[in-house]
Amino acid sequence: MSLRNFFCPGSVAVIGAAREEGKVGRNIFDNIINSGYKGKLFPVNPKADKIHGIKCYHSVLDIPGDLDLAIIVIPVKFVLQVLEECSKKNTKWAIIISAGFKETGIEGAKRERQLIEKAKDYGIRILGPNCLGIIDTECPINATWSPHMPPRGKIGFITQSGALGTAILDWAITNKIGFSKFVSLGNKAGISENDLFNDWENDKDTEVITAYIEGITYGREFIRISSKVSKKKPIIVIKSGNTDAGARAVSSHTGTLAGSAKAYEAAFKQAGIIRANNTRDLFNYATAFSYQPLPKGKKVVIITNAGGPAIMAVDECDKSNIFLASLGKETINSLKEFLPEAANFYNPVDILGDALADKYKKTLEVVVKDNNIDAVVVLLTPQAMTQPYRTARAIVEVMENSGKSIPVLTSFMGGSEVKKAIKFLAENNIPNFDIPKEAIDTLKVMMEYTDWKSRKSFPIEDFNVDSRRVKKIFYQCQNEGRLKLGEIEAREILEAYDIRIPKAELACDIDEAKEIAGRIGYPLVLKIVSPDILHKTDVGGVKIGIDNEKELEGNYNQILFSASKYIPDANIRGILVQEFIKDKKETIIGMSEDPQFGPMIMFGLGGVYVEALKDVSFRIAPLSRQVAREMVEEIKTIKLLKGTRGEDPSDIDSIIEIILRVSQLVIDFPEILEMDINPLFVKKQGEGSIAGDVRIRIGG
Amino acid sequence: MSLRNFFCPGSVAVIGAAREEGKVGRNIFDNIINSGYKGKLFPVNPKADKIHGIKCYHSVLDIPGDLDLAIIVIPVKFVLQVLEECSKKNTKWAIIISAGFKETGIEGAKRERQLIEKAKDYGIRILGPNCLGIIDTECPINATWSPHMPPRGKIGFITQSGALGTAILDWAITNKIGFSKFVSLGNKAGISENDLFNDWENDKDTEVITAYIEGITYGREFIRISSKVSKKKPIIVIKSGNTDAGARAVSSHTGTLAGSAKAYEAAFKQAGIIRANNTRDLFNYATAFSYQPLPKGKKVVIITNAGGPAIMAVDECDKSNIFLASLGKETINSLKEFLPEAANFYNPVDILGDALADKYKKTLEVVVKDNNIDAVVVLLTPQAMTQPYRTARAIVEVMENSGKSIPVLTSFMGGSEVKKAIKFLAENNIPNFDIPKEAIDTLKVMMEYTDWKSRKSFPIEDFNVDSRRVKKIFYQCQNEGRLKLGEIEAREILEAYDIRIPKAELACDIDEAKEIAGRIGYPLVLKIVSPDILHKTDVGGVKIGIDNEKELEGNYNQILFSASKYIPDANIRGILVQEFIKDKKETIIGMSEDPQFGPMIMFGLGGVYVEALKDVSFRIAPLSRQVAREMVEEIKTIKLLKGTRGEDPSDIDSIIEIILRVSQLVIDFPEILEMDINPLFVKKQGEGSIAGDVRIRIGG
Repeated sequence: MSLRNFFCPGSVAVIGAAREEGKVGRNIFDNIINSGYKGKLFPVNPKADKIHGIKCYHSVLDIPGDLDLAIIVIPVKFVLQVLEECSKKNTKWAIIISAGFKETGIEGAKRERQLIEKAKDYGIRILGPNCLGIIDTECPINATWSPHMPPRGKIGFITQSGALGTAILDWAITNKIGFSKFVSLGNKAGISENDLFNDWENDKDTEVITAYIEGITYGREFIRISSKVSKKKPIIVIKSGNTDAGARAVSSHTGTLAGSAKAYEAAFKQAGIIRANNTRDLFNYATAFSYQPLPKGKKVVIITNAGGPAIMAVDECDKSNIFLASLGKETINSLKEFLPEAANFYNPVDILGDALADKYKKTLEVVVKDNNIDAVVVLLTPQAMTQPYRTARAIVEVMENSGKSIPVLTSFMGGSEVKKAIKFLAENNIPNFDIPKEAIDTLKVMMEYTDWKSRKSFPIEDFNVDSRRVKKIFYQCQNEGRLKLGEIEAREILEAYDIRIPKAELACDIDEAKEIAGRIGYPLVLKIVSPDILHKTDVGGVKIGIDNEKELEGNYNQILFSASKYIPDANIRGILVQEFIKDKKETIIGMSEDPQFGPMIMFGLGGVYVEALKDVSFRIAPLSRQVAREMVEEIKTIKLLKGTRGEDPSDIDSIIEIILRVSQLVIDFPEILEMDINPLFVKKQGEGSIAGDVRIRIGG
Repeated sequence: MSLRNFFCPGSVAVIGAAREEGKVGRNIFDNIINSGYKGKLFPVNPKADKIHGIKCYHSVLDIPGDLDLAIIVIPVKFVLQVLEECSKKNTKWAIIISAGFKETGIEGAKRERQLIEKAKDYGIRILGPNCLGIIDTECPINATWSPHMPPRGKIGFITQSGALGTAILDWAITNKIGFSKFVSLGNKAGISENDLFNDWENDKDTEVITAYIEGITYGREFIRISSKVSKKKPIIVIKSGNTDAGARAVSSHTGTLAGSAKAYEAAFKQAGIIRANNTRDLFNYATAFSYQPLPKGKKVVIITNAGGPAIMAVDECDKSNIFLASLGKETINSLKEFLPEAANFYNPVDILGDALADKYKKTLEVVVKDNNIDAVVVLLTPQAMTQPYRTARAIVEVMENSGKSIPVLTSFMGGSEVKKAIKFLAENNIPNFDIPKEAIDTLKVMMEYTDWKSRKSFPIEDFNVDSRRVKKIFYQCQNEGRLKLGEIEAREILEAYDIRIPKAELACDIDEAKEIAGRIGYPLVLKIVSPDILHKTDVGGVKIGIDNEKELEGNYNQILFSASKYIPDANIRGILVQEFIKDKKETIIGMSEDPQFGPMIMFGLGGVYVEALKDVSFRIAPLSRQVAREMVEEIKTIKLLKGTRGEDPSDIDSIIEIILRVSQLVIDFPEILEMDINPLFVKKQGEGSIAGDVRIRIGG
């Protein structure tokens, strides 16, 4: 259902409109009037006959005709009753400003659950409770208790913190940042960021979607909706609360390294969300997106009247993987015609400290004709002869007449000397940044968004696997209360999903072990098999590189001895005699369950790389092949897999294949809570990968 | 020589004072007058009799009496002549505004060298050429061509970019940021940042030293002076131009990984320089240092009326290793007495959205009494009932009456609603930050500076070594034109500096090899020895783990075969038969020569860690033991040396010892241009480290 009628309703009742100034109910009523709202407005207050000379209704039920939107600003104990009355007026929407719900504790949470149920019964969609309200600058309506109505613009802003919302509104008005819509989410009992993203995908007034979010409720839905909407409009999000709270019950490597912050990071990447670290970045990005076209590539040209700021800008380009465009010969020759000899005709184009507006103008005119450039950054410091305002005018004029769709960002640095110029630039949709760093940071984000938009989406593949076999194993384990699967069963599960494992057989005594060794051939690996031992290495339960029968015998006994020393009561099912994989690299593929987003897949290089460097990458399942490749390429140690110093490259394709199969496995079986394939032996290109060991923990 | 008389001279001549408005010579003259300069001021212009009704002298020589400071603003060709005239008036200082020197090319550079020589002959110390001038707000004097005179304050600012300087001045005035002194360095033919740091160490008006620097000329002097001055006053520096220019002739790992950016990073660390990435950070830090006392520890308390911003602040604390102070029981009980039940009494202390100034006041009063806190951050967003200005007053009042020396930083967020409050805070020396992130970032920098100040300086140790033996080797190599030292000589050098090397002897044929093997004992390593082969491994010139005579023979021949295949003309001096070091970790210690700072030492884990991860640290020689320890602890893979998963820790002390000996070696012999000890085998704690291989390149 479109939210158009919610943002710009035909009729609004303020239930709890107060006569006393300063009260929230009065503020909202006043703000709606002052914002120029053109629909029908009904104050409701059992004790008032008139507010502002406007007839006040004692009950919602007294309002003539149907009611589109109810804004409820009354003590919490009356909210449910009023909601029922609203339903009798065929009310479609309710904004519940009132606090006293989930945010206050257990009792409040109960009240909120009732509210959600009732709203569903009545067919009323709610925003809040415990929120600031909404603003629609096009309608126009300011249905918040904040008197700040920002100017019209193309930015839609959602905030999960009402208090932050008030600061943003105040800031936006002071700095003349235009908004299309403003929504304070409150407790998110009804309308959530997902609904708003979905709605704003097709909202003609909103070109850039921004949000401050503390937590996401429906993670998978969030990824689905965002990845669709972000292809059409940039979504910029601040996600706060990134410290992982408290201890979680984890027993795998993946579980230890995962956590809510990693999950959000992965989800945002997959959803094409542009992440801002703070409100300054958020609005830097949002303004640039709403003012300027997207760059087509990564090549920037810098025009400056000051060397120092240009050097700093170049430093930032270097950090951000933005290239300095090589200007064409023709461009350089044209510049030489009018720039002084001491100028720099290459990039950054330094037109020197005494440059007047006209020199900026001519330079920009020449430069934007050059087809080698994807973006322009103009720097200016107010020196003795500088004309900031005229230069601003020149920039606007040149870009208007250029017929080119190239983003222009400026950094006019200084204070009062550049103030008028910056204001003019903003009025003409050219974003100015206090320091060159922020212009380049923003450009980087725009360039990455261009990449995202142009990226094709690939489908999730469906492998032909033997899921029935896995189902059986899990069923049996759950029945027996064994929730940490032993190696034998875990190996079977991998086999069922066509993930290669080393040849291996379980030996119950040393004679059997020798027999098996004869079949598999040396060198071998020996591993203890016991449901009570998860970290085999820690108890001396693994021996590698067994070269002959003598070594086999010695190591066999040693394993049994040390295992019994460490964990005397362990139920030992035997010793796995296993093929030793030669010429390989060790990696790890894991999965852990995130409360917000569901199964999350991890990849990294094995052993010390995982433990000491934490050099791993995460994505939320299910994964497309493209996303799986991305996560493999993302780790810092990828060079070790691609081969350094003439070494053979490893079989990266086979890693990706296994990641996809693990992704399918954990989606097929939500009972899997944690899983580690560690090590995953990767052989050289074309020779595949083999799961050396696997551990799986399932739910009961 | 103190610069006091330079910044506040008794007499000043503006040579090139112009009658025409808008000319630089006129601007400077006007600015000096307008700044309220109280000394004698002489305009000099051969063509003018009066400027501003003030008597104008046709020549410096006409000025009555001696002249302290000459400001030279005349065409470049007359500068030397005028300088000579100044010398006749016993002039001590000259600011050369005129351009046309080094910055214009070869001719200009020649002119600048003449200028430097002449100035030395005349005993005149110069600033510039090609600079903007100086400002001293205490004197007061504005001897720049920028009309902007910032307010008085405690920040000294040095800029190597005049153009950036103009922007900073304009910004400082607009934002009422106080400066003590402002210096535009220009080409640095005379006075440099080193002179200014040194002088400002004892300048009572300057409490914080700040600088924008593009390059440093005297690197070692810079470290010496800065590390002394920074113990007394914070030095905050922007170093721009961090992309390494072009190719350098390097043949070692260390050389490849080093470079100017790394050298600056190392030098700044050793000098206690606080690095700012941009002007915003620079002045955030500088303002906080100049306004507030230093925190004594790392525990912060956050007071807020808004949950969202508090969460963001906590996120930043987490990133910055700042701890949230645990408030004492008494504090919490006191807070409970007057804060509403829904408030958060713990840290962050959330006094809720409807908090008036009085609630902020009481909370702050209670909290600053708690001895568990080292710093306070106060957050505020302008909500319905918020009193920003009154809250600002309350903060100032509480801190004034608290009798405590605890830094308070604020982030009042918003626009016009908080403007007056922020102004009041600034006037009362409380720095406000647009966003919580910047408050926390700044606090982090303050906390790190507290650490630096309290850190004892350790002396450079002097080991008893056989430097004569090394001298002889270098002499012989240089005589023979062999500038890349072979392993035999390099080993001898390490021995002379008491750095342990594996037992080894050179074999010229297989029989000799067998004999040596008998003496050293298996297992062994074989290595080709040839002045023409630097990367032995790449040509199959190294074989490890030789266990018996049969393997010795086979591998001996194989090395000779593959070396002759790769480098047919190589002059092979034999094969080194070497002890095989067991149970070790591989690290690398290297050195490369930096043009600015001299010999730079590198440390990292060996092999793939250096190559794929570039996980190395750098410091400038000579090093104290403390600095050497720091550089070892700094690498990300340090965990691998400290022992993971119950593994024995490695002998880190022995690594430090070897770093110190290498440091002494490269300081003793400046002819060493590059050096790699790779691998350095590190055994477990107490068992020492052994240089597995070493390469040294020297100058001719």
